[in-house]
Amino acid sequence: MSKCTVTFLPHQRSTAVSAGESIIRAALQAGVHINASCGGEGVCGKCRILIEAGAVDDGFSDRLAEEDAAKGYRLACLAKVTENVTVRIPVESAMDKSVMNLQVTPRRTATIQHPDFESLKEEGLFIPPVEKLFVSLTPPDAVNNMPDVTRLVEHLKQELNEHKLELTLPVIKKLPGLLRGNDWQVTLTIIRAVRDDGKNVIQNVQAGDRTAHNYGVALDIGTTTIYGQLIDLATGECMAEAGDFNGQISYGEDVITRIMYAEKPGGLDKLHEVVVGTINGVLRKIIAQSKVDREDVSTITIAGNTTMTQLFLQVEPRNIRRSPYVPAATLYPPFSAESVDIDLNDHAIALIFPQISSFVGGDIVAGVMGSGMYRDERLTLFLDIGTNAELVVGNKDWLACTACSAGPAFEGGGIEFGMRAAKGAIEDFSLDPLTYEPMIFTIGDVRPKGICGSGLITMVAVLFEMGVINNRGKFNRDLGTDRIRSRNDIWEYVVAWKEVTQIDRDIVLTEPDLDNLIRAKGAIYSGCMTLLEEVGLTMDMVERIILAGGFGSYIDLEKAMTIGLLPEIDPDCVTFIGNGSLMGAKMSSLTNRIRKDIVAVTRQMTNFELSETPSYMDNYIAAMFLPHTEIEKFPRLKARMEARARK
Amino acid sequence: MSKCTVTFLPHQRSTAVSAGESIIRAALQAGVHINASCGGEGVCGKCRILIEAGAVDDGFSDRLAEEDAAKGYRLACLAKVTENVTVRIPVESAMDKSVMNLQVTPRRTATIQHPDFESLKEEGLFIPPVEKLFVSLTPPDAVNNMPDVTRLVEHLKQELNEHKLELTLPVIKKLPGLLRGNDWQVTLTIIRAVRDDGKNVIQNVQAGDRTAHNYGVALDIGTTTIYGQLIDLATGECMAEAGDFNGQISYGEDVITRIMYAEKPGGLDKLHEVVVGTINGVLRKIIAQSKVDREDVSTITIAGNTTMTQLFLQVEPRNIRRSPYVPAATLYPPFSAESVDIDLNDHAIALIFPQISSFVGGDIVAGVMGSGMYRDERLTLFLDIGTNAELVVGNKDWLACTACSAGPAFEGGGIEFGMRAAKGAIEDFSLDPLTYEPMIFTIGDVRPKGICGSGLITMVAVLFEMGVINNRGKFNRDLGTDRIRSRNDIWEYVVAWKEVTQIDRDIVLTEPDLDNLIRAKGAIYSGCMTLLEEVGLTMDMVERIILAGGFGSYIDLEKAMTIGLLPEIDPDCVTFIGNGSLMGAKMSSLTNRIRKDIVAVTRQMTNFELSETPSYMDNYIAAMFLPHTEIEKFPRLKARMEARARK
Repeated sequence: MSKCTVTFLPHQRSTAVSAGESIIRAALQAGVHINASCGGEGVCGKCRILIEAGAVDDGFSDRLAEEDAAKGYRLACLAKVTENVTVRIPVESAMDKSVMNLQVTPRRTATIQHPDFESLKEEGLFIPPVEKLFVSLTPPDAVNNMPDVTRLVEHLKQELNEHKLELTLPVIKKLPGLLRGNDWQVTLTIIRAVRDDGKNVIQNVQAGDRTAHNYGVALDIGTTTIYGQLIDLATGECMAEAGDFNGQISYGEDVITRIMYAEKPGGLDKLHEVVVGTINGVLRKIIAQSKVDREDVSTITIAGNTTMTQLFLQVEPRNIRRSPYVPAATLYPPFSAESVDIDLNDHAIALIFPQISSFVGGDIVAGVMGSGMYRDERLTLFLDIGTNAELVVGNKDWLACTACSAGPAFEGGGIEFGMRAAKGAIEDFSLDPLTYEPMIFTIGDVRPKGICGSGLITMVAVLFEMGVINNRGKFNRDLGTDRIRSRNDIWEYVVAWKEVTQIDRDIVLTEPDLDNLIRAKGAIYSGCMTLLEEVGLTMDMVERIILAGGFGSYIDLEKAMTIGLLPEIDPDCVTFIGNGSLMGAKMSSLTNRIRKDIVAVTRQMTNFELSETPSYMDNYIAAMFLPHTEIEKFPRLKARMEARARK
Repeated sequence: MSKCTVTFLPHQRSTAVSAGESIIRAALQAGVHINASCGGEGVCGKCRILIEAGAVDDGFSDRLAEEDAAKGYRLACLAKVTENVTVRIPVESAMDKSVMNLQVTPRRTATIQHPDFESLKEEGLFIPPVEKLFVSLTPPDAVNNMPDVTRLVEHLKQELNEHKLELTLPVIKKLPGLLRGNDWQVTLTIIRAVRDDGKNVIQNVQAGDRTAHNYGVALDIGTTTIYGQLIDLATGECMAEAGDFNGQISYGEDVITRIMYAEKPGGLDKLHEVVVGTINGVLRKIIAQSKVDREDVSTITIAGNTTMTQLFLQVEPRNIRRSPYVPAATLYPPFSAESVDIDLNDHAIALIFPQISSFVGGDIVAGVMGSGMYRDERLTLFLDIGTNAELVVGNKDWLACTACSAGPAFEGGGIEFGMRAAKGAIEDFSLDPLTYEPMIFTIGDVRPKGICGSGLITMVAVLFEMGVINNRGKFNRDLGTDRIRSRNDIWEYVVAWKEVTQIDRDIVLTEPDLDNLIRAKGAIYSGCMTLLEEVGLTMDMVERIILAGGFGSYIDLEKAMTIGLLPEIDPDCVTFIGNGSLMGAKMSSLTNRIRKDIVAVTRQMTNFELSETPSYMDNYIAAMFLPHTEIEKFPRLKARMEARARK
């Protein structure tokens, strides 16, 4: 799609956007504020702009007077970019350009890190745990009448340099008939040993040459959603992908209620049954979509948190939620997918990502492995933010992890107008530093219904940086704007007046909301700090951040650093891997390297129970400020705030 | 039981027998001939003897005149030894003592070789493939909350020096509950790795200390009979033993008809089902007898011939009976007993003895391993005689094997009055060298019904050595006895007149019977000769013979050498191991050494298909004489015959 340059005056900032993008989204991208309250439906009429050069499509509504339209005014939320355009924003005369450009930092999300198959190939590591080999044997005769299996194994040794082979009983059963029915030409499916001195197991045999048809499934068992991908193990290509809500949701929304259900008579079996039902549904979809032969699916690589993993495997999870929080196992052996009721075929092998602790599970290990963090020199912070946040810090030499209960603030919980990231959620925010009028963006560009996690982070960061809230999360009560008010003794900022919302109420951000957000970000930051301190390092040494989980892709990085959710590092050093669990499962389907390394990684990764780490509480208290008691830890923010103070 | 000495006159031979033994059995043992035709029922009245010193019990019948009884005569078959006794046998006056003592060689069967557990223990090899270990773990606390499996594995590594451990999924499932329910004390069942660098798999976990309860099953799947033993793996003791006819008998008596049945639709599944039915019946019996908990049975070690093994495992056997006679596999991996429908428990492991070829199967390998032949310096001939005879020659450095179709002569087939070794079968035989009157012994000491294999060997050996038949298996027609006669142009020797048989017919040995026997023994001897020649050795180098199979214990060794079934060696160097298949399975249940060695042994054991070995036919033809064309191969026999010729 062609890119057009949008230049904003008087700021003199330019940005390139795709044709069809709205002017207001271009402004967001450029870090330019336009008052806008209604989410983009042209309802508030506040986002008036003047087109000075070039043209735009649309931009009219009954909130824009005809004479203004004739002069070249448009509503920024409705005007679409079609060519290079220069746009003037009406601003207070008192505001000069330098102030304008301090308004906000440009929106910047993390670079998406895709699985790096090319370097795998270059390193010669593109070796799936399960390979197919075509063999063409010399038929037996009176002189050489060794058993079929011996004939096969000798051929593999001598012609293909394959050693330490073992055949399963089902393969031995199929072999005599398949050899004789196919001119002594068959294809073997071999599970590679993890250790060099281990056995290579021939788990299936098929007629003729089937080497071009070797598939694996990567599966993420999330508490809420289950995703599966069907991977071509010859090319690395994802042939089909599907997801579905985890059928266990009916038995409890979070892991703790699921564990409680599992403790009831028959509960564990029921939860196993329903999750397997969801998984088999996902498998049916991706097999149908990709049109592969079920017989050709050799592996299913599964990642999930500790509770999801234990429930799936019917391993009682009761000790996960009871002090001292002991999971059943770290490593699970490979086993037949059929043995846990996975509906693939009789030989597909299930490979389970290991767990570290009750609250740092296979989903996190998958992310750490799939992202390559464990092989990188740089000190990296891996962060999966949700109600429970999992943190891993370390590099190729060491890894430490922990989990903390961030609370549901990032998912909209405990926030008066909080909501999940769905249509109508305010996902981005900017503020006029003089009038304190906001520019809001909603998912779907509709009138606002509430505030989602990434919107909340941005909103608080902006309000803090603009001095609307102080570092203890209290509103400045002397700003002379009716948007800041007290209601029932609770101070709040009106994000959107009820006239422009979908809910016929003002959408506000309250001081208790701020408290909850600060506790959430404080828990995460102090968790990370504590981990580093335990190994004698400090937060400013973090060179790189990897964000995982759905939430991570929407976070405005600089804003997250402003509130002290993330340590302040170069945003170029922050990457987003999306569903790290699924990505790790996919990577692990394609390279035996991960299976080889994972035992050492899980052994090496030190888990800290924060409740048992004395310094955690001190760090937590220090993190209960915006961004932190020690502003020195955030030098860029400090510089911006000092610059603004000088104005 | 107290032993009594019986001295026979005029021979002046003495022998020690248990009190209660009959005089005629004592004579057999001493190598003293007494005419006796009726099998010991006192019917023929021929076995009159005179008690000269000491006394006997019984010995009377209506065939013994009262006046003779008064003089001290008794019937040898009915007279029982109670004390030291001297017995005179009425003999032809022309016969002097030296001739008498050439009559027969004393009866001598092979020494029974029992499994040698003591030397296993001395060598430190009494290590069953599956062991139980008791562990008592430190419970987790807030500081040490590693996962249950990790806690267990660390304990095993640090406290018990156990490494390379892997737990099965079912063990992981059971572990958390069992640990917490039993004060953190459990017993593990560990399958030891075969290779030193292999994995030790924890296959079961039980509450508390169950180390004293570790059992294995040794199972022999014979074509006719299935035997099982329940072995205490802690002591080596056999706690229970049971056998039953293989349920497959209804589908064919021999392996070939079973294979043909298996080729019919559903046939293989049916044969699997019925043999598993028999096995499970045997298991029920030995478990009930021994009163062990089924849960404590850790292994089932199974030996059977190649066809029995493949039918049991549902591996199609059709190629076994078709040139070039290719079995499916040599080695089978260990697998869950449950997976082949064995009714033990969910964790017992089935270990299958490997096959060498279509006709040298796991039963023979079990015998070779169990007897320790593969670890012995001496050049040994291992022989399992049946319709199909399996031969192994070699020592600790090399092994060669073959199978030959001996035909059913040794089991009574193709012999006019042949029968299996059952009540009424003539099992031993002696001949008066002047009158050609026989002394016969039957199983159960009843009137004769027929001749069993060991009786046939002895009979032919004695008749040959006494010059009644020549080295081509033809009767000497000029001996002037009515026992040698022609009927329908077929010459025969009357072993028992119809008056004393159970069948109201004369029991005879015919020249066609002799032909069949010579073909049978010739096939075996020439098979062994051919094997040795192929490795550059000769029969006279054989230092030791191991006989396996039910038949072997009854063979009179010197007689078997006389007819050329066995090479002529010191009878002290012949041992009998009984059911070698069952013995090997038992030994293998008790020492991991066999599992460790067996891969090399099966790889090293060279199989010869006699039909493909050109020299076999020449050797076979040379062996179609009694004992062989080259009498020089049998120096003791040659000396006896020359001594007799001088008389």
